[in-house]
Amino acid sequence: MGGGDVSKEMGTCSLAYRRGDHKLRKFVTARSAKFLLLSIIAFALLTLACRSSRPWFNTSIAVADQISRSRKGYTLLMNTWKRYDLLKKSVSHYASCSRLDSIHIVWSEPNPPSESLKKYLEKVVKKKARDGHEVELRFDVNREDSLNNRFKEIRDLKTDAVFSIDDDIIFPCHTVDFAFNVWESAPETMVGFVPRVHWPEQSNGKADYYTYSGWWSVWWSGTYSMVLSKAAFFHKKYLSLYTNNMPASIREFTTKNRNCEDIAMSFLIANATNAPPIWVKGKIYEIGSTGISSIGGHTEKRTHCVNRFVAEFGRMPLVYTSMKAVDSRSLWFW
Amino acid sequence: MGGGDVSKEMGTCSLAYRRGDHKLRKFVTARSAKFLLLSIIAFALLTLACRSSRPWFNTSIAVADQISRSRKGYTLLMNTWKRYDLLKKSVSHYASCSRLDSIHIVWSEPNPPSESLKKYLEKVVKKKARDGHEVELRFDVNREDSLNNRFKEIRDLKTDAVFSIDDDIIFPCHTVDFAFNVWESAPETMVGFVPRVHWPEQSNGKADYYTYSGWWSVWWSGTYSMVLSKAAFFHKKYLSLYTNNMPASIREFTTKNRNCEDIAMSFLIANATNAPPIWVKGKIYEIGSTGISSIGGHTEKRTHCVNRFVAEFGRMPLVYTSMKAVDSRSLWFW
Repeated sequence: MGGGDVSKEMGTCSLAYRRGDHKLRKFVTARSAKFLLLSIIAFALLTLACRSSRPWFNTSIAVADQISRSRKGYTLLMNTWKRYDLLKKSVSHYASCSRLDSIHIVWSEPNPPSESLKKYLEKVVKKKARDGHEVELRFDVNREDSLNNRFKEIRDLKTDAVFSIDDDIIFPCHTVDFAFNVWESAPETMVGFVPRVHWPEQSNGKADYYTYSGWWSVWWSGTYSMVLSKAAFFHKKYLSLYTNNMPASIREFTTKNRNCEDIAMSFLIANATNAPPIWVKGKIYEIGSTGISSIGGHTEKRTHCVNRFVAEFGRMPLVYTSMKAVDSRSLWFW
Repeated sequence: MGGGDVSKEMGTCSLAYRRGDHKLRKFVTARSAKFLLLSIIAFALLTLACRSSRPWFNTSIAVADQISRSRKGYTLLMNTWKRYDLLKKSVSHYASCSRLDSIHIVWSEPNPPSESLKKYLEKVVKKKARDGHEVELRFDVNREDSLNNRFKEIRDLKTDAVFSIDDDIIFPCHTVDFAFNVWESAPETMVGFVPRVHWPEQSNGKADYYTYSGWWSVWWSGTYSMVLSKAAFFHKKYLSLYTNNMPASIREFTTKNRNCEDIAMSFLIANATNAPPIWVKGKIYEIGSTGISSIGGHTEKRTHCVNRFVAEFGRMPLVYTSMKAVDSRSLWFW
């Protein structure tokens, strides 16, 4: 039986359900409502029980993991700033993710990392070693304090995939593995968890003027054009492009304004691919403060960056999309 | 506010809901049940009304379409066999899709297409011309009747993207446009609507023996490793790889067995990318018969093909994934 037939059945169901809406409001009775509610709950629990106890389901995960382990992993590129407790928590968490190859900590503080911190993290990573494979831990120490440090070229990276992450964000390992799996199908574009969008400003009649919009705009419109590098996979070649090929004026701008290096990376990748990024559905646990996005005037600053970069690139390279990558294994209904 | 915060909220909601399941069964009363049902319906209708009337929502679609039109489209590669009514219906439908560039009809019948059929289809395509852009219509006539004809190299293809489709399957244009948008983010892999999966045979202790499984296995496991070429996007370079670089023995096998050219293409692309395909959620309308998948012994034949191809490729190239690409604009909840 083809997926198509099932989709058709589902189409009919939802149609019947929509038709049902109006009738329900008129004729819903205590009994029918109670019966309907209990049936829904029973069916949901039954489906969940069935699927998780399904041998195929378990086999599939086992086999998928087996296949995964036999293939190349990713490098965790973690940006941090004087929050050693968060850094310890994050490194300790990600070190246990099965497909992680190495951890690079982007260090931009005036003083180098302390010996005690180094020792602690090395001990944690050693403890999490699996099947003789130990995750490599490295501090990339920078003299200058610049947001561009997080995208500095790393010449001897073993993996093509880079997972760029802030030190105060935790994702479960299975969520990171899933996003990595998505990136493997789309290695040219950016694959991340935090979508953002730009809109052309039409009201004031300005030509080629855009505004930057946050999560709620993405939620309403179901459309986005960027994913933020605070939690995203991309190919290591973009580190080299950002550092060596992107106009220096853009890097200077982000250093001076202490903002928008993530928007610059989104512009760079969209400009190279002419394609949209991919947003992966995943639960984020923020263990630190909410960050600069909560500071006043944030949106205005970001809007300024977008328009500055459009001028620098000579066009608006960002591409709209409404695609969301979800994990089928966590879905009950299709 | 970051997407993360929202995800966290949603996480809490679903947790609360699960906890609620057990209480509900005990304490649900006529009133609370009725109230709950009506609230759900009211909220759903309100959300739908809000989102579709949202200026951002409409702008986003308009802008996205505008951006889309300014970029390269795709070629429809339609396989047909003595079902002229279906062919007319399909061509007439797809000719109206905004991002379609040209239609290639793979013709493998002993007699060439009749003048009346050609005239009819050309007239239909002319009628659907938009903004002075007329879709090109071409018959690729083959002498030999072979399933490999559908993947023959086409030297002068204008677009990189090929949408391979059977003549008896109809997708709404917005669904095809969405899948094309997904393919633009992942042009190296196969992006399609009909997922299938292979499983390692463990019971009989055979080494490297696999079984082919259909839709229900994918549904249960939430895992797949192929998408069928009866409804899938892929890069035109794979037509040349299939025709000129893939072992001739595989093409001979599919011609002789009149089956599995789609599995061969899945093997070819997975072997070239070491990555999984992408399954796009979409409603399929099958206007013809259910095809060979309904014929007895179908699964055994497909299993035989999988193992034959593993031997030919010298390994199992297919990669598992559980990713499903859904259109955020059609989702109410996140």
